[in-house]
Amino acid sequence: MLLGRVAGTVVSSRKEDTLEGLKFLVVKQLDVEESETGNYVVAADAVGAGVGEVVMYATGSSARQTEMTRDRPCDAVVMAIVDTWEVGGDVKYVK
Amino acid sequence: MLLGRVAGTVVSSRKEDTLEGLKFLVVKQLDVEESETGNYVVAADAVGAGVGEVVMYATGSSARQTEMTRDRPCDAVVMAIVDTWEVGGDVKYVK
Amino acid sequence: MLLGRVAGTVVSSRKEDTLEGLKFLVVKQLDVEESETGNYVVAADAVGAGVGEVVMYATGSSARQTEMTRDRPCDAVVMAIVDTWEVGGDVKYVK
Amino acid sequence: MLLGRVAGTVVSSRKEDTLEGLKFLVVKQLDVEESETGNYVVAADAVGAGVGEVVMYATGSSARQTEMTRDRPCDAVVMAIVDTWEVGGDVKYVK
Amino acid sequence: MLLGRVAGTVVSSRKEDTLEGLKFLVVKQLDVEESETGNYVVAADAVGAGVGEVVMYATGSSARQTEMTRDRPCDAVVMAIVDTWEVGGDVKYVK
Repeated sequence: MLLGRVAGTVVSSRKEDTLEGLKFLVVKQLDVEESETGNYVVAADAVGAGVGEVVMYATGSSARQTEMTRDRPCDAVVMAIVDTWEVGGDVKYVK
Repeated sequence: MLLGRVAGTVVSSRKEDTLEGLKFLVVKQLDVEESETGNYVVAADAVGAGVGEVVMYATGSSARQTEMTRDRPCDAVVMAIVDTWEVGGDVKYVK
Repeated sequence: MLLGRVAGTVVSSRKEDTLEGLKFLVVKQLDVEESETGNYVVAADAVGAGVGEVVMYATGSSARQTEMTRDRPCDAVVMAIVDTWEVGGDVKYVK
Repeated sequence: MLLGRVAGTVVSSRKEDTLEGLKFLVVKQLDVEESETGNYVVAADAVGAGVGEVVMYATGSSARQTEMTRDRPCDAVVMAIVDTWEVGGDVKYVK
Repeated sequence: MLLGRVAGTVVSSRKEDTLEGLKFLVVKQLDVEESETGNYVVAADAVGAGVGEVVMYATGSSARQTEMTRDRPCDAVVMAIVDTWEVGGDVKYVK
């Protein structure tokens, strides 16, 4: 998994049928100091994350291991909202 | 998933039998500001996307989770045509 | 999938038993202008591609979705020989 | 697999139900000289690794091949604590 | 697959139970000119490769398609020892 911040949303009306009802989030990747790395991903939302929230996301086949994404052509999912993380004994982020 | 713009098509007459009937699109990857990143992928088309359209594509095993690509040696699929996306409260793209 | 040019072959006599009979090709990755990117992959050949030919290859689990590669420890496969591609209305390659 | 050092932990109370009970570690990637590469991953802990320990981690679908992670939306797992490694005849790390 | 040279070994006594008996090799990635790229991977050994040997390795779920690695949290495997390869008509490596 990687850490990211939900930066926005993507809307699509013409898509694979099985994707109906999924919410697509633009997630900007964060490093462990909470700085943006410049990378992003569009991920399905499995936890009700809002814009601005710091999250963890999984990619690849693991992104299909949620009830919302199973058997769908979806390769990234937000699977947790982060409360806090620490690195080297320092708290780097608190919600 | 990543955002991309359909830039063209690839034609192949000699290919794995199961790929018969698939349309292959050259998709240039976009960043969240709608600029090209310099990366591309050749993706199967699951939604009838045309050249110039902005799309989302999935890669890896997730690219086989559509009726057109199931059980085929295909690792990228265009699974949605994008209407709009916004980042940081700003609309970055409208179809 | 990505575009590539078959640049050579790899020979191995001591290998996993299930790989017996597979032909391994050195494939140099191409960008959409038909220039080499500097990346390469060793891919199993599912279509009888020869050295010098321009091909498409799939990676990851999708590389096992051919009769030749199924259930084998193979993560890249040449699944199509390219006739032509065009980008932005320009023909970039013709066989 | 890659080598890494456990640098910290991530806490999340709102997450996919199936992730309940998993411990999430911030793992900084190491090169073969035991220097940090600048990359990191958040990995589930399958071996009881503590902060500061040098570990091996697996990513992708392989990260779900442990009892703790099976069928969960988890794409990285710490699956071994490293005792020692050597490269080119030199011991590069001893626990 | 990619080409690599076995550079060393990793020893771990505390690991996922299913990994018992696997030998872990440090493999430095090679380009097609037989130069090191600076990347490495720790791969399970499925062919009895020794330090210094030039090999091919597979990553991702394909790394679990050997008898030794099936259903284990292992994302890279050495699946062949290379005898020779050639690129552009030139022999680049002979064992």
